[in-house]
Amino acid sequence: MKQLNKLIDHIVHRVNINLREPLVDVGPFIKDLIPKDSFALYYAFYSLTNTHPLKFHFRHSSVGGTYFLGKCVVDHSILHKSDIRGDELKRKGHLVAVSGHNIKLRDDEVIYIRDSFLMKTLVHNNSHDPENLEVFKISNTVSLHYANIHGTSVEGCFLEPFSTVDLSICHDCAIGSYSYVQAGELSHKRIRPGRVWVKADGAFEFNYQFPTEVLAKYIRIEDSRPKGMFMDFFAERKEDFIPIYSAVNPENMIDVPEGASVSPYAVIKGTCKVDKNVLIAQRAYLEDSILGPGSNAQENCYIINSVYDGEDVTAHGGKVIYSHLQRHVFVGFNSFLNGKKECQIEVGAKSIIMPHTIIDAQEPIKIPENCLVWGYISKQEDLEMHSLSLTDFAALKGQFRLGNLTFEGIGAKFVERFRLRIEHILECNGAFWDGSDEKAGHAQQTQDISFNILQPYPEGDLKGLYPELSIDPLEPSEL
Amino acid sequence: MKQLNKLIDHIVHRVNINLREPLVDVGPFIKDLIPKDSFALYYAFYSLTNTHPLKFHFRHSSVGGTYFLGKCVVDHSILHKSDIRGDELKRKGHLVAVSGHNIKLRDDEVIYIRDSFLMKTLVHNNSHDPENLEVFKISNTVSLHYANIHGTSVEGCFLEPFSTVDLSICHDCAIGSYSYVQAGELSHKRIRPGRVWVKADGAFEFNYQFPTEVLAKYIRIEDSRPKGMFMDFFAERKEDFIPIYSAVNPENMIDVPEGASVSPYAVIKGTCKVDKNVLIAQRAYLEDSILGPGSNAQENCYIINSVYDGEDVTAHGGKVIYSHLQRHVFVGFNSFLNGKKECQIEVGAKSIIMPHTIIDAQEPIKIPENCLVWGYISKQEDLEMHSLSLTDFAALKGQFRLGNLTFEGIGAKFVERFRLRIEHILECNGAFWDGSDEKAGHAQQTQDISFNILQPYPEGDLKGLYPELSIDPLEPSEL
Repeated sequence: MKQLNKLIDHIVHRVNINLREPLVDVGPFIKDLIPKDSFALYYAFYSLTNTHPLKFHFRHSSVGGTYFLGKCVVDHSILHKSDIRGDELKRKGHLVAVSGHNIKLRDDEVIYIRDSFLMKTLVHNNSHDPENLEVFKISNTVSLHYANIHGTSVEGCFLEPFSTVDLSICHDCAIGSYSYVQAGELSHKRIRPGRVWVKADGAFEFNYQFPTEVLAKYIRIEDSRPKGMFMDFFAERKEDFIPIYSAVNPENMIDVPEGASVSPYAVIKGTCKVDKNVLIAQRAYLEDSILGPGSNAQENCYIINSVYDGEDVTAHGGKVIYSHLQRHVFVGFNSFLNGKKECQIEVGAKSIIMPHTIIDAQEPIKIPENCLVWGYISKQEDLEMHSLSLTDFAALKGQFRLGNLTFEGIGAKFVERFRLRIEHILECNGAFWDGSDEKAGHAQQTQDISFNILQPYPEGDLKGLYPELSIDPLEPSEL
Repeated sequence: MKQLNKLIDHIVHRVNINLREPLVDVGPFIKDLIPKDSFALYYAFYSLTNTHPLKFHFRHSSVGGTYFLGKCVVDHSILHKSDIRGDELKRKGHLVAVSGHNIKLRDDEVIYIRDSFLMKTLVHNNSHDPENLEVFKISNTVSLHYANIHGTSVEGCFLEPFSTVDLSICHDCAIGSYSYVQAGELSHKRIRPGRVWVKADGAFEFNYQFPTEVLAKYIRIEDSRPKGMFMDFFAERKEDFIPIYSAVNPENMIDVPEGASVSPYAVIKGTCKVDKNVLIAQRAYLEDSILGPGSNAQENCYIINSVYDGEDVTAHGGKVIYSHLQRHVFVGFNSFLNGKKECQIEVGAKSIIMPHTIIDAQEPIKIPENCLVWGYISKQEDLEMHSLSLTDFAALKGQFRLGNLTFEGIGAKFVERFRLRIEHILECNGAFWDGSDEKAGHAQQTQDISFNILQPYPEGDLKGLYPELSIDPLEPSEL
């Protein structure tokens, strides 16, 4: 255990040096955050497939409960129950268009995590850092419960619980709880909790701020520890994962039709049905729900007592309860659609629930078709101040304000980009698969998968740490 | 699968070149021996402890179902459900006395398996090859079901089922089914099935030959496949291992007292009891039996409806059914004590059942104290021709013949060496542990253990092969 404590000190020191401005001491947040025995209790698992280039190396790290796919290097870091998913890493020879130039990748891209502490964090990797094309880098960073890091390099950052850093590149930033940031390159910024910020230079800027007292009910930090309804929600369901993690090859408890894929590491409870081209990722949670064709449940999603008509996306950490999603709905990262049996939520076709939206229904709520929804909603009338038809939104130009939302720029560009991204997500997940290789995506490509289960030292000075470990592809031999 | 077939061809080719004299074509024995889908079905498991130096590397190999402990390298080989147990590997700086000289090891000793096919083989490593002190080498070798390779280098060898190569160094030899060889350095020898041969140059030579027609009932080769009662015995019980191999951390179904150790990968059926300092190794099988203090059940042992009074040793592959072992009995490698409910076997204290002894009781059989037993016994009267008191044996000098046994040399040396080895086995296993570090052995040292579970490619050209994989110790860091 001695070595593990030294490693935590080492990470605190490195991150604090980066964060000297704005000043945050990450020490209290991560010291004693994980009960010491837990470090030796959980295993890491590494996916082996024929479709994702393989390379894995870790050195002087603890990676308990973490899932890995693709090329990943972990060095002097602690990853606890995180997801490091490299299935969209760029490959050698791939051309990337940057400011009008086509740059050719000289190597396969690798996720490289160094001197960092990621707690229940999701890292996904459709990267957008033109300065580091071959390396998807996370260094000197602390990230807490259910934070998402997507398509970005982060360096010297502190991400509070349920925050999302999306497509941005962040240097020395502190991102508040439940903040969503998609704002290009940031440096030495402190983002306050509950800010939803989407910015594209020269095109638009979207800003929403959750009221502090509202957000505190769902997620807040007390004595350096996360508290609130979001944390309780996960805690109440965590035991459902135990049987899955006890089996070497957990079995699916559900019929999986052609082209669909249900991770053996997902929880399936009650009566569930999935249609063709559905993707249920590891750590997703499905209970008494029906997912129509091409729908998906990404990592850390909870879909309970709900019906998806088809091509509906639940982005990482989305929670959907007693809801009916018509076709082609997008539920953004870490959104919380908390319907109840008597207060169900209906979402019209092609609507977009912005990332980090809370709909905590106190009465039945019906969202029209083709609508953009954001912020905090508990009654039908709240939609007035927290939604706009996408047609109206696309017509915005200049400055626009509605309640806690400000938007500036060209609405059409905002809507177009969002639509394109949703199509990209559906395509990548294989939602439109017709049997051809061209339209195959994650749902079809992750069917043949095996897992290496990696365990730490069980006792002694090294307890909780892992030996140095490398996994490399097997080169075709000249035998 | 393409690559796996190429690898099998490659091994056949290499081994056949070594075996040009005596000529055996190993191809028919190993081609299609393992159903092709099995290669992708089983995982390998690698033990992590604080007490056994760690280093593992495999390259272009298939290692399904195999258990590894300690420093092991596997290169261009197929290991299927084997046990590679490096817990007695010598360490850097260790002094080895060879012909009066003390040689200091310059590195930790490593088990190195190259261009070989080991099927359900046990490799254990208290090595005795003075020419290769840092490497415990198995190369260009095919070894079949339940063969044992102990403390030896083998190179260019073919081991038929249930054979044991013990302490010997073998070059280009073919060892027949159920042959036991402990005869120093051998080259280009063909050992016929059912020979039990123990030779120490200048001291003694022990030779027993099973009658061909007797042996055929238990183990024979038909159309290049092993058949007989031994194979049936394993086949009837193999399903009992399935639940164990399905769990990431199988749980012990038995009370384990202080100083004792029961591998989570052992089968415990019915009502069993183990006393202090007992060691139950992985793949051992215990059913309705009681093991007194300091007893052990090594790999591939089956102990069924039996009682051990204490300090009783069941060496690798020993099978003991409806038997009562008084104190300090040794049951040798692959011996078969097949008692029945109405025909039980009683073994007196301090008796030694030679390796590869078959006692298939057709009536109750009682073996006196302090007795050496060998060969084939089915009735009490058979003991006359297949046993001798150890006191009488120790008095032998010159030539001695009894039935199919010939002994030449000094009986006292034979008995003394055997006694010392049994004490060594008991000590190593921790049978005499009194709470002190000095007397701790495997039973005490393998309590804190975790397992890496390694899986092969599930589909495609590489199906059944493993990626290149290394596990190295974590060096104490200067953090």
